[in-house]
Amino acid sequence: MSARENTQITLARRPVGFLGPENFAVRRGPAPTIGAGEALVELHYISLDPAMRGWIDDHESYLPPVEIGEVMRAGGIGQVIASKADELKEGDWVTGLLGVQNFAVIRPGAAQIVPVGAIPAHHFLGELGIPGLTAYYGMLDIGAPVAGETVFVSAASGPVGAVAGQIAKLKGCRVVGTASSDAKVAFIKELGFDDAFKYEYGRLSAQLKAACPDGVDIYFDNVGGDMLEAAIGAMKNGGRIVSCGMISTYNDTAPRPGPHNMSLFIIRRLRMQGFVVLDYFNRQAEFVGQMVEWVRDGKVRCQYDIVEGLENFPQALTKLFRSENFGKLLIKSV
Amino acid sequence: MSARENTQITLARRPVGFLGPENFAVRRGPAPTIGAGEALVELHYISLDPAMRGWIDDHESYLPPVEIGEVMRAGGIGQVIASKADELKEGDWVTGLLGVQNFAVIRPGAAQIVPVGAIPAHHFLGELGIPGLTAYYGMLDIGAPVAGETVFVSAASGPVGAVAGQIAKLKGCRVVGTASSDAKVAFIKELGFDDAFKYEYGRLSAQLKAACPDGVDIYFDNVGGDMLEAAIGAMKNGGRIVSCGMISTYNDTAPRPGPHNMSLFIIRRLRMQGFVVLDYFNRQAEFVGQMVEWVRDGKVRCQYDIVEGLENFPQALTKLFRSENFGKLLIKSV
Repeated sequence: MSARENTQITLARRPVGFLGPENFAVRRGPAPTIGAGEALVELHYISLDPAMRGWIDDHESYLPPVEIGEVMRAGGIGQVIASKADELKEGDWVTGLLGVQNFAVIRPGAAQIVPVGAIPAHHFLGELGIPGLTAYYGMLDIGAPVAGETVFVSAASGPVGAVAGQIAKLKGCRVVGTASSDAKVAFIKELGFDDAFKYEYGRLSAQLKAACPDGVDIYFDNVGGDMLEAAIGAMKNGGRIVSCGMISTYNDTAPRPGPHNMSLFIIRRLRMQGFVVLDYFNRQAEFVGQMVEWVRDGKVRCQYDIVEGLENFPQALTKLFRSENFGKLLIKSV
Repeated sequence: MSARENTQITLARRPVGFLGPENFAVRRGPAPTIGAGEALVELHYISLDPAMRGWIDDHESYLPPVEIGEVMRAGGIGQVIASKADELKEGDWVTGLLGVQNFAVIRPGAAQIVPVGAIPAHHFLGELGIPGLTAYYGMLDIGAPVAGETVFVSAASGPVGAVAGQIAKLKGCRVVGTASSDAKVAFIKELGFDDAFKYEYGRLSAQLKAACPDGVDIYFDNVGGDMLEAAIGAMKNGGRIVSCGMISTYNDTAPRPGPHNMSLFIIRRLRMQGFVVLDYFNRQAEFVGQMVEWVRDGKVRCQYDIVEGLENFPQALTKLFRSENFGKLLIKSV
């Protein structure tokens, strides 16, 4: 296998403001060889995530920044095609931070073996992958939904939002979602959300009032910025805000002001809590056990937006920050 | 008793921005008479609180606004001097929202009987009153301090901040406070805080970094605004922000922008939770039991700033928002 070509996408320069294809470069070379204790993985799907914007800034974050010239960090799923590690066998499917490349060399522990079979591989980057894990613990541990409560989810056609909303439905909540297009709104309703609307900045508070006239108990925030401010304004007494992501702010060149209604935290006894999915990696077993069941029973699903060819990564990633993807954005690399 | 004069302070006009004496009026009349089921209370001390600024705005809050011409809402402590209610006897000491006036007519349930005796009356508006109750549940229930953690308290020479910090010390934390003058800083250190500094807007982040070089686990916020932003910037992973008050913003004429560093909620897994002390009135017994012990043993105390004469209420309240009081601000009305 080592004679095959390995295409890699590397970080060419850090973006200032909105990222674009110019921030990345393509590097081609032979597939790597492995040493003792290592395995060679051929990637099938690569995950494109909002978090990538933070990974390429030279700012404080929960992981060190990707360095210039380094292979771009990305989650992915692939198959072991050669192994000199006892724990990994040829044919095993693995997920992990495998990078934007055709081939990755891994050691056991750097990736997780997953049971691809009845459920196709790409779902392990969606409902059964990081987005699913994020939605699961974000909604259940931090949001802590109670039957009858009203839950509002932003970016609700994306994999995290879609799964978070469906979990809240399974817990007996009234669930409202928002997204950037009519097609996405229709999809959110198909998923079983009780209501959904296409957001319009400048009208967010009125839209929320119309969709949640009695207020919101849980806001699952993937967006931040003005959406967060509008949601704070719509919260009921004792409401919880799950701070999962703030995609609307990731391309900002300067820190933007926070919500103008912080005083509502006191008046309405609100709780806001941020989290990072890395902290839940040690609780994957519970999640996978439950989610496999829900996926098999058709109770939880998400939409996939699959782009063919590794070399299209830079263009595809740009789509994500323009809300032009529809569902979980993946590169199919085989 | 009903022949005695009753001085009342009423709301004359709602403030725009900073409140001043012109927002209040003095009304004099005979002391009220009581009917069946009522008791007449002569107030001894009246509590002046930051929350009063919110009570006189015609805005959403956790209590309805005080109306123009109405007696100003205030907590107080007084003695029953006449009673036609079985549950209240002449000589009983009671606390409650008795208003800014010499005499109040109450029904049982509108006030709470307190054991004035070994502990003088005014302490039931401080360590043993609303400020103490606020500090107790804010720190213990919401902050949830663990021995060895670093706790930062703003407005730490005030009764809530002083008590909150002393409770965190009793729980084995390193406690740092901030206040507006050198004298207040010296007092905070006398209380047993590990460190304290006089805050300077524009240098808050640097001051916090110097006082808490390893970061802050719990920020007990009485101030909001720039202090909150600086504290968010100083929080450790998993830090908790107790949103108790935002006195720096209460005189704003327009909603001010929130913190510019909201993204740290996610990156550092922060939790911020607001609360209103009213929600803990049903848990007074636990609080009083513990706090009486701490006060008697000299483990918790606060400073009192006592102004004589009801008619000085408007001037005294203005002091509170200029950080010119030193400790719990009370009117002595007898």
